[in-house]
Amino acid sequence: MKPTGKVTLLSAGPGDLDLLTLKAARALTCADVVLLDDLVNPEIASLAPQARVIKVGKRGGCRSTPQAFIERLMQRYARKGLHVVRVKGGEALLFGRAGEELAALRQAQIPVEIINGVSSAFAAAAGLGVSLTHRDHCQGVIFVTAHLRDHSEPDWRALAATRMTLAIYMGMSRIETLCASLAQALSSETPAAVVQWAGSANERRVTGTLATIAAVATEAGLGSPAIILVGDAIGEAVTLAAFEAEMPLLRSA
Amino acid sequence: MKPTGKVTLLSAGPGDLDLLTLKAARALTCADVVLLDDLVNPEIASLAPQARVIKVGKRGGCRSTPQAFIERLMQRYARKGLHVVRVKGGEALLFGRAGEELAALRQAQIPVEIINGVSSAFAAAAGLGVSLTHRDHCQGVIFVTAHLRDHSEPDWRALAATRMTLAIYMGMSRIETLCASLAQALSSETPAAVVQWAGSANERRVTGTLATIAAVATEAGLGSPAIILVGDAIGEAVTLAAFEAEMPLLRSA
Repeated sequence: MKPTGKVTLLSAGPGDLDLLTLKAARALTCADVVLLDDLVNPEIASLAPQARVIKVGKRGGCRSTPQAFIERLMQRYARKGLHVVRVKGGEALLFGRAGEELAALRQAQIPVEIINGVSSAFAAAAGLGVSLTHRDHCQGVIFVTAHLRDHSEPDWRALAATRMTLAIYMGMSRIETLCASLAQALSSETPAAVVQWAGSANERRVTGTLATIAAVATEAGLGSPAIILVGDAIGEAVTLAAFEAEMPLLRSA
Repeated sequence: MKPTGKVTLLSAGPGDLDLLTLKAARALTCADVVLLDDLVNPEIASLAPQARVIKVGKRGGCRSTPQAFIERLMQRYARKGLHVVRVKGGEALLFGRAGEELAALRQAQIPVEIINGVSSAFAAAAGLGVSLTHRDHCQGVIFVTAHLRDHSEPDWRALAATRMTLAIYMGMSRIETLCASLAQALSSETPAAVVQWAGSANERRVTGTLATIAAVATEAGLGSPAIILVGDAIGEAVTLAAFEAEMPLLRSA
């Protein structure tokens, strides 16, 4: 009997292949099978020259590969003794379905390795030139998905009560209502920003306040995938925008 | 007059040099000056063969390089036309003093580039084999520092009210009291874990509950630097620990 292969749960980062870790790049080099999520930069396949590459995207709301099928696919190839690399956008251990995939692989007794990466909210902050947790403004940051399993909303009031920076994933389809909910608990002048395709060649960003950001983002034509950032720490980005106009070299490296 | 150089604010990740991004590794290759924080793996200097390497650590509570001096040092070298790489542990835009350093560099009109990385809490989750946000358990994760500027405590009750996973940085010196505070708002049976030196060769981890984790960590001799994780999503790690005993191949890659 052939020895069992293994599955590597790999974080692809926000898009730019340069934001992969050295460990991730090496794992791809020796992959036999690569399973790619929708939002992952397809050029990542060039780093896995030996691999069979299979797209298994699951776009919110669209018809797509069922989760159970993806899990069976990983197990089938691993059982053949192959090295399966499951590529997830951003950081694999934040949102997505890593928890369920890990549980399924464990139950099937298939060895798993996890390789971390850069999550989109950090790339968004880098694009804006701000720390997510400037200590003049807050004690931390909350990463929350606006896309809940039961189609309900997160408890925006409880999140606002922490006075922390909010990094909202998958919120663009309801940006207007979520900003309105937050404005009931926070000042409507609270700085906010939207960064689409953060950390990729197509990155676009706008800044404003809780009162204005939904309109500003809509007017600029920004949609999914994007990160919505809210909090006083994000106010530093406004200064940056003003500064950049005079100082185009900034972040030109 | 020589052209102004630039500063790269570089995220070194949690320790293992393999967890640097490709972009970070390349920036180091052509650095002229490297300013290293305390908790950064000193072997990173081997990736910057041309650079003058200066240690500018600022351990909490210890005598160390004042922040203002670090900022002046960056500016002085950049003004000489050099490429200064400021290396920060974990992700540069989470805690640390990136916000202040960015503001100082902007005021001095020095071009800045930011390179993201892997924050320790993600490495801790990888070590435990869990998602930080398993959707059976929560809608997000909070990254909070227990080490506040004015020596007060974060509002643990407000954080607990969000029902999210908590990733607590710099909390080991007060783990007992902070777990007690959290246990006033959460069940004392809430799963918890401590991971010391997450994502490095010296990584050590223990799991327990809010009621037990402080004693378990102390008995195992775990101290700073460590991440404390609290929340139902972390309960998946307990299953993993039980499973690993029978299945040592797991994450052996």
